[in-house]
Amino acid sequence: MVNIGIVGVGTVGESVVQILEENRDIITARAGKEIKIIRGVVRDLGKVRNVNIPLTTNYKEVTRDPEVDIVVELMGGVSGAYEVVRDALLHGKSVVTANKALLAYHRFELQQIARNPFEYEASVGGGIPIIKALREGLSANHILEIKGIINGTCNYILTEMEQGVDFEKALKTAQQKGYAEADPKFDISGKDAGHKLLILASIAYNIDVKPEEILIEGIEKLTPADFQFARQFGYKIKLLAIARRVGDEVELRVHPTLIPSNKLLSQVDGVMNAISVVGDRVGETLYYGAGAGGNPTASAVISDIIEIARGTSTPMLGYKRPLEIGNFRLRPIEEIETSYYIRLVVRDKLGILAQIGEIFSRNSISIKSLIQTAQGEQVELFLSTHRCTERAVRHSLAQLSTTDFILRPPYSIRIEEE
Amino acid sequence: MVNIGIVGVGTVGESVVQILEENRDIITARAGKEIKIIRGVVRDLGKVRNVNIPLTTNYKEVTRDPEVDIVVELMGGVSGAYEVVRDALLHGKSVVTANKALLAYHRFELQQIARNPFEYEASVGGGIPIIKALREGLSANHILEIKGIINGTCNYILTEMEQGVDFEKALKTAQQKGYAEADPKFDISGKDAGHKLLILASIAYNIDVKPEEILIEGIEKLTPADFQFARQFGYKIKLLAIARRVGDEVELRVHPTLIPSNKLLSQVDGVMNAISVVGDRVGETLYYGAGAGGNPTASAVISDIIEIARGTSTPMLGYKRPLEIGNFRLRPIEEIETSYYIRLVVRDKLGILAQIGEIFSRNSISIKSLIQTAQGEQVELFLSTHRCTERAVRHSLAQLSTTDFILRPPYSIRIEEE
Repeated sequence: MVNIGIVGVGTVGESVVQILEENRDIITARAGKEIKIIRGVVRDLGKVRNVNIPLTTNYKEVTRDPEVDIVVELMGGVSGAYEVVRDALLHGKSVVTANKALLAYHRFELQQIARNPFEYEASVGGGIPIIKALREGLSANHILEIKGIINGTCNYILTEMEQGVDFEKALKTAQQKGYAEADPKFDISGKDAGHKLLILASIAYNIDVKPEEILIEGIEKLTPADFQFARQFGYKIKLLAIARRVGDEVELRVHPTLIPSNKLLSQVDGVMNAISVVGDRVGETLYYGAGAGGNPTASAVISDIIEIARGTSTPMLGYKRPLEIGNFRLRPIEEIETSYYIRLVVRDKLGILAQIGEIFSRNSISIKSLIQTAQGEQVELFLSTHRCTERAVRHSLAQLSTTDFILRPPYSIRIEEE
Repeated sequence: MVNIGIVGVGTVGESVVQILEENRDIITARAGKEIKIIRGVVRDLGKVRNVNIPLTTNYKEVTRDPEVDIVVELMGGVSGAYEVVRDALLHGKSVVTANKALLAYHRFELQQIARNPFEYEASVGGGIPIIKALREGLSANHILEIKGIINGTCNYILTEMEQGVDFEKALKTAQQKGYAEADPKFDISGKDAGHKLLILASIAYNIDVKPEEILIEGIEKLTPADFQFARQFGYKIKLLAIARRVGDEVELRVHPTLIPSNKLLSQVDGVMNAISVVGDRVGETLYYGAGAGGNPTASAVISDIIEIARGTSTPMLGYKRPLEIGNFRLRPIEEIETSYYIRLVVRDKLGILAQIGEIFSRNSISIKSLIQTAQGEQVELFLSTHRCTERAVRHSLAQLSTTDFILRPPYSIRIEEE
């Protein structure tokens, strides 16, 4: 018998309880033991819940109960969850969490104090077993690159916008369908994807950085015109979370990205998630599935519980011994190199194209393609560049912003050709 | 230190030796131990090999060497490999194999005698960690369906044929590029995919059947006309390996399949593999990558070695206890229900369409769409049907074959709409 204490009994928690009950046959056969949830911790005992387990408001009745073997943390948030998980680990419990924010900030501290199994499959990609794939399935490989669509809210909105819907309307539809929170900021700003990216990067590169240190841009500034440009040049626009090894540095970034529309990642629509992982030996592999929702997330949580029950847990970040090599440094944001799409709204005046060209060339940026559309007094310019540094683009756009012919703040989207 | 004996040192074996050497840093950190190949077993000591390990022709110097911890079987074939693997297990070794034919025939016997870890990630989908995903990642789920493109040779040929190339020419190109064997029969007949399907089905359904018991059809009879029909109706043609739960029965089948061209599986081109798995809780997940080749296959083999070295191996078919429920029976081939595309070549004569319609309706098959093209004296008919049984289609086609107006044997392709 394995006894579970569950902290946070919301949508995912309810699904965990339900699946453990309804799929008991197969779960017991796979785990080799009966799995029983003996207590749940909630904030509000008065709230009606769809589960039949004893509840408490005091997490220590779970983290310090000698009967409890595994603490499942599903409360979300950073500091409160850290307190609970830390207490559980210090009291010798195994831990399963779905909490990406907790791990984005505290994964290396938690790894240090975890003497027992610590699993977190549900923290990235919902029901997709991406942690297992990266940490165990590809363990023979040096990871060259990870590119993920790992925020379903953003992907839903971008899929709508592809059909010509504008951002505000797409967001509203997403909220009506329950795909976006009432306060959607955390998702659409790219932060949620950033947290998940850091978890994947820790497994691939053993790199300990905080969300604030990496490049994160959201999808709020995209317009239907950007999607038109994308279509015209054979691209789709996706919010990608990218980790890439460049020498002994690692690029980590989350931003809207133009990707060729014949790539498999381009075909991932709606709330679905997908992660492409390139290993030095296996080449590209890709993992696709539901990135959120009660049942898919609970599916991952329970796979972790089974792993622990059966005694086959992998070390938290996949390293049984401290990694001697691979002391990767984070590549400074301004040194990231890629190609760019740039949208400019300028006054319709003679000689402006020359001035724009002059600013780009002064910053060593070479233009690859250009589309110009006039609307009354103003001209919209859509440019794409050859590879250049983030620094060069930032300088160029800053210089453009101070000219007298720029009518709106310049906007750029990075391109990933490969 | 973990000592490996490797039986069969061909392309994959050489890659295993090479990767263990070149990625030693990361592999040791993940395994927690040094991994050393101490002996290789080959048939011909005279052959030049790209590896620097002691070689022997006697497999017992590996399976019975007290120094050897893990026997890696890469020799292929059924009976010889069975003898080696059995001997290794009986002498207390852990086993890693990439041998799908061995497992297609002997997986349940091997499971019974395996007292130590037995891993086989490379046996299906090459470098894609599909065994791990299905056996561990989705362990909370009852598996509803598996649909896989798991033979790269066939997928390469079908991708070529989509461009209008005929079968013979596509096969020749595949052979020139090293994607097809000199004797390609095993791949293009669907047998290889059938073997792999049985492995996946055993994990999902614990079902013990032999390749001869399931429906397996190859791609040899496809013509450019079939691809034209497919395109016209929004389909692609893929060789799919399908396992599907229908009540307490499981359908197992491998055959060319028409699938809607907007599905992710349709986008999997060339030698790449992909497997879609639907769980009752997680919904659809999909896994994509290189299904063959020395390095991708070796990547999977080494991930198994690491798993064993670190002591985190999962029970062979994923069940720690005998599965009490889920005594699935194989659905008899003739009872499989799906919709069909049927190609008929008939004499151009009055009243023939009525006769054909009569034969189908007598077998309760309802026609969904029909295209007719005349070429001189003969007419080609392309029909698609609504759902019906395999039995009904077989009877209809047998009856059509005996008519005086049929000029060539009728040909049918199953359709998977979902």
